[in-house]
Amino acid sequence: MKQTYFTAGPAELYPTVSQHLQTAMDEQIGSISHRSAKFRSIYQFCDEQLRELLTIPESHGIFFTGSASEVWERILLNCVEHESFHLVNGSFSKKFCDYATALQKYAHKQEKPFGEGFDYSEIEVPEYAELIAVTHNETSSGVQMRPVDIHKLKRSHAKKLIAVDMVSSAPFPDLDFSLVDTAFFSVQKAFGLPAGLGVWIANEKCLEKAETLKHGDQHIGAHNNLPMLWKNYKTYETPATPNVLFIYLLGKIAQDFNRIGVENLRRETEEKAKMLYKFVESHPQFSPFVKNDRHRSRTVVVANTQKPSSEIISKVKESGMVVGSGYGQFKDTQIRIANFPATDVEQIGRLIEVLGKI
Amino acid sequence: MKQTYFTAGPAELYPTVSQHLQTAMDEQIGSISHRSAKFRSIYQFCDEQLRELLTIPESHGIFFTGSASEVWERILLNCVEHESFHLVNGSFSKKFCDYATALQKYAHKQEKPFGEGFDYSEIEVPEYAELIAVTHNETSSGVQMRPVDIHKLKRSHAKKLIAVDMVSSAPFPDLDFSLVDTAFFSVQKAFGLPAGLGVWIANEKCLEKAETLKHGDQHIGAHNNLPMLWKNYKTYETPATPNVLFIYLLGKIAQDFNRIGVENLRRETEEKAKMLYKFVESHPQFSPFVKNDRHRSRTVVVANTQKPSSEIISKVKESGMVVGSGYGQFKDTQIRIANFPATDVEQIGRLIEVLGKI
Repeated sequence: MKQTYFTAGPAELYPTVSQHLQTAMDEQIGSISHRSAKFRSIYQFCDEQLRELLTIPESHGIFFTGSASEVWERILLNCVEHESFHLVNGSFSKKFCDYATALQKYAHKQEKPFGEGFDYSEIEVPEYAELIAVTHNETSSGVQMRPVDIHKLKRSHAKKLIAVDMVSSAPFPDLDFSLVDTAFFSVQKAFGLPAGLGVWIANEKCLEKAETLKHGDQHIGAHNNLPMLWKNYKTYETPATPNVLFIYLLGKIAQDFNRIGVENLRRETEEKAKMLYKFVESHPQFSPFVKNDRHRSRTVVVANTQKPSSEIISKVKESGMVVGSGYGQFKDTQIRIANFPATDVEQIGRLIEVLGKI
Repeated sequence: MKQTYFTAGPAELYPTVSQHLQTAMDEQIGSISHRSAKFRSIYQFCDEQLRELLTIPESHGIFFTGSASEVWERILLNCVEHESFHLVNGSFSKKFCDYATALQKYAHKQEKPFGEGFDYSEIEVPEYAELIAVTHNETSSGVQMRPVDIHKLKRSHAKKLIAVDMVSSAPFPDLDFSLVDTAFFSVQKAFGLPAGLGVWIANEKCLEKAETLKHGDQHIGAHNNLPMLWKNYKTYETPATPNVLFIYLLGKIAQDFNRIGVENLRRETEEKAKMLYKFVESHPQFSPFVKNDRHRSRTVVVANTQKPSSEIISKVKESGMVVGSGYGQFKDTQIRIANFPATDVEQIGRLIEVLGKI
């Protein structure tokens, strides 16, 4: 039986994926050269569709990596000489911070207990931090940081670079890219594609920083460093052979999203999130993990469970649906429900119905 | 019209790919969690099939990255403290060397003119080089280094690590992994898959070196560093979300190859290579670029052309076949013909027939 995946990524494939994949196979996209005009037009198309979808200005380039985790490393190598600052409120923001330490940067952090989020007013940015790393959506804890707070943070620290992890929320957050210097996501979350491609958006200020660091005491990496990516990007190429097929698919999905309209997608995401939170708030077997509504993720809903989560996951599976367990120490006491465009209001409704009978 | 791709990668997809892809879609491989038992069994299966195909002993782990170029960086960060040594005889061996310089290692090199290869007897390894980097098959120039020479090189420098780039030849070269410390390839060459996955084979000596370097003055990278990859590998997991779909497909193709038998694959590759070299040697419009037979690549045949290569490429295309142009400065005066398992004796025969009429 085919399952509907409400997992936070890898997740349910967007309904049009299999059709685009078939077209790609018919057009032999898996065999074309990454130095051909055909590939350049695929990259350009994907770039244009993402630019429209996320309102990305010309100051920013769009690059491809193997995964979003790779982008953590690339940002730290290319945009930080000595000190970075991390808002840590979950396992993935912590990993970004750990990457900085592993790369021998001085990683400052401000930390919140699991399940709590940050408001602008409480953030204290260290004086010498060159980069502020924020996570729009913590996949592990279901906590979001509102774009309004992210924007204020940048405005009050205009000379520092700000990096936004939107791995499990893009294209949901309405980020102002005139303020956001760099952001990144992976395709196996809200874009509903198989895993295997990271997308890195970075502006000219990031490039300038990388160009400066390149001539310093520390290296900026050899593979996928920003100056090399940018140089190739000018002709819609990549330094090494990229995942051509997935870039093709991402362009097609972004086009599908643009046809729906990002405002409609965001409205539907809000609507489905409301349905889910209303349910977990009202049902005696569940309670929302994140207490503060403005910190509640709209794309990954985390609920405490009365019964062991494994029991609930099994029950739901009998009805052809897959929800995720809690993350790390919350594995047995929480479930995580992805709210991505691949699952519509009706499917969320059916999930709620099944959960309600537990 | 569907074309047959004789390009050196991305290349013709292996004939069973579309069927495996369909099965993967039916089984929703694109949606399963990379922390699930199902993923672990996919990784294990792929590992076992590759191990059988390439005769990889238990001392070596098999890891996945975004591309083979990423592996260049990972090897240099994890296995070289100060000095590496590179046998440079084409654009890709040169890039490996350039990566070392970019990572602030002292990169020694011994260089050959484009189109010439190395024999063991002429190689002079610098005393303090920690790693010897050799390219089994230079995709750019169509030059190979014979496994027998690679093995001698390691035997006479047993204390140094040896890294073998087999990007565009695996599983063709019969490497002795009791001698080869680390090797790597990408899936869009002889394995006939779309691009987007690098495969890194490394032994415990590489791990030991990485563990030592980790506590030194330089970092070993944060993403996909060897200790992290190895730790996760013990349970057939990966540190970050990998390209689950392509790992699944690679396992299936490796199984298909094992059913044929690697010896048969290698024999057929030799046979097709002979056909191609015999043709380019005898036809007045062509001549083999690599003069020395023992240095002639069996998987990427490079031929000088009398007419501009673009004319030949266009002509061949009219018959539904794609061959590659020369690399870099040889773009207009050479063609490159991939000889991978995806194209059989009959197809090579047809290509020769068409080329013969030019």
